[in-house]
Amino acid sequence: MSKLIGMDIGGTNIVCGLVDAQGSLIHKVKQPTEALKGSGYVFDKIGGMIDQLLRETNTPRTDVSAVGAGTPGFIDPERGVTLFAGNLKWTDVPTAEEIRRRTGIPTFIDNDVRMYVYGETVCGAAQGYEHVLGITIGTGLAAASVNRGHLFYGGRYMAGEIGHLIFPDQIPYTCGCGMTGCLETVASATGIARQARDLIRSGRSSVLREWFRDTSIESMTAADVSKAYDVNDPVAVEVMNHTGQLLGRGLAYAVTLYSPDMIVIGGGGALAGERLFAPMREQLQQSVYSGYWERLTIAPARHIDDAGIIGSALAAGQRQAAVN
Amino acid sequence: MSKLIGMDIGGTNIVCGLVDAQGSLIHKVKQPTEALKGSGYVFDKIGGMIDQLLRETNTPRTDVSAVGAGTPGFIDPERGVTLFAGNLKWTDVPTAEEIRRRTGIPTFIDNDVRMYVYGETVCGAAQGYEHVLGITIGTGLAAASVNRGHLFYGGRYMAGEIGHLIFPDQIPYTCGCGMTGCLETVASATGIARQARDLIRSGRSSVLREWFRDTSIESMTAADVSKAYDVNDPVAVEVMNHTGQLLGRGLAYAVTLYSPDMIVIGGGGALAGERLFAPMREQLQQSVYSGYWERLTIAPARHIDDAGIIGSALAAGQRQAAVN
Repeated sequence: MSKLIGMDIGGTNIVCGLVDAQGSLIHKVKQPTEALKGSGYVFDKIGGMIDQLLRETNTPRTDVSAVGAGTPGFIDPERGVTLFAGNLKWTDVPTAEEIRRRTGIPTFIDNDVRMYVYGETVCGAAQGYEHVLGITIGTGLAAASVNRGHLFYGGRYMAGEIGHLIFPDQIPYTCGCGMTGCLETVASATGIARQARDLIRSGRSSVLREWFRDTSIESMTAADVSKAYDVNDPVAVEVMNHTGQLLGRGLAYAVTLYSPDMIVIGGGGALAGERLFAPMREQLQQSVYSGYWERLTIAPARHIDDAGIIGSALAAGQRQAAVN
Repeated sequence: MSKLIGMDIGGTNIVCGLVDAQGSLIHKVKQPTEALKGSGYVFDKIGGMIDQLLRETNTPRTDVSAVGAGTPGFIDPERGVTLFAGNLKWTDVPTAEEIRRRTGIPTFIDNDVRMYVYGETVCGAAQGYEHVLGITIGTGLAAASVNRGHLFYGGRYMAGEIGHLIFPDQIPYTCGCGMTGCLETVASATGIARQARDLIRSGRSSVLREWFRDTSIESMTAADVSKAYDVNDPVAVEVMNHTGQLLGRGLAYAVTLYSPDMIVIGGGGALAGERLFAPMREQLQQSVYSGYWERLTIAPARHIDDAGIIGSALAAGQRQAAVN
């Protein structure tokens, strides 16, 4: 009973990993989610992925004490229900029970970003810090706060939505949530690409225009903007500076309200690294009381791809131990 | 052992109350703090106030199981030390031990605003709500978050400083903390009076100018601005609207990060009531995702003057019970 399984059920892919009690990832398998085929199809696939994972690692099923799964959106971790996940088109899906029924293993679920930040706190870049604020910069922008090992949930488990802090004077975009000016419409991988596209469409000259001469600029990614930044492209530099500054302002609000010792930054967008972090840090320092800034450590995630799997597995292990 | 003593040690006054186990205030005594005479003088005075309180209520000292005290500033509740309280000019003062030594009763301390919000949560306007955000509008502006009975502290117990969220584009004032644009420089009793004075000095006509013809406008208070608002004074209306809108923006950030079910508003500035709350609510609704707004209750504090005493007493009772 010394092993755990952690999963990250995303809008695009499902990743499923075998993790030991210390949080080391032993082996993982990945498949496209194909959410459009319905939740039953997805859960059958998950059952098959867990079979495959056990087979490929010669692990008896009885060696696995718990399965943990992180899903996007609003989750009720106590009832094990995915309340609403736009990316998966799931509303009130009893995710934990559906997985348990197909695997025979006790299953616990939580929000994917909380599990990512929990993973980084227990055995990643934030290990050893008592009060951690973690953000993931991906398709969207979200945060979680871990204090002395405890995740902060808030009412309806909806705390930490840093991506929906609004900056109506600086951000013109309408968000999927219905508001205008949400931080995640710029401070996300999607938002970085979108800003670059909009500047190019407005007539600004950019090396990106040449790179996408034969391809639609709709396919441009944050990684392309990073590459353009590295050749001093003025559009890319402006986008990274503007995004970093707004992210710094949003983090300043979160730091003032949560008072973390440590900020860990993960998700694919974190691969922009110092291009984004340098203007972010500068703005953050200017926007918080010095008593917060002086004791704050900021670092990128250690398990940039796997923190969600590791966190889900370890959180499930904790919760199963509490049941026993 | 069924009684508790709660105290609010402020920059101006000390209030000390006898509270029963259900949080009912039995009797209270009040004295000026005279902080300039030094912490030893203040603690001797507190010892005398507790003697007086017991005498006036015929309560044997052995009937009191714990003393709780809220002090402003940064507090280490675990060590019982006031780390820094600008209003009292205290740095690293072992407040809990100093009071215990003079009374012989186990003493616990915490930040005054946290104790106020705890009091309102346990037996005030926020009673029965699982996730509470409380703010006090006084000389400054501060917040505390209580979740299923647990206060949220953050690193160095510094969480909840909503008064130091900055709005550099809307707020020109420099704050005592060293930053410019802190919310509390406008959204506080002090800030309301200050804005009215500045508009009058800039030449705007106002009934307040007549009311303070023979007195320095430096003595103007938020209560005066409320009175002017009630006769439709344009300066007072503008100040209340502007303050309410900015407070709504700040609360929107706090709601998005904490996800409370309930916001309770206390402190002397809350006496402005709907003059302030109407523009605040309107802005808050526009600035948060509807999933937060729809389940949010907002109400003024029930024990506007005494929540801090009640909260300190009950929190001390809880902590003493945990020791035993």
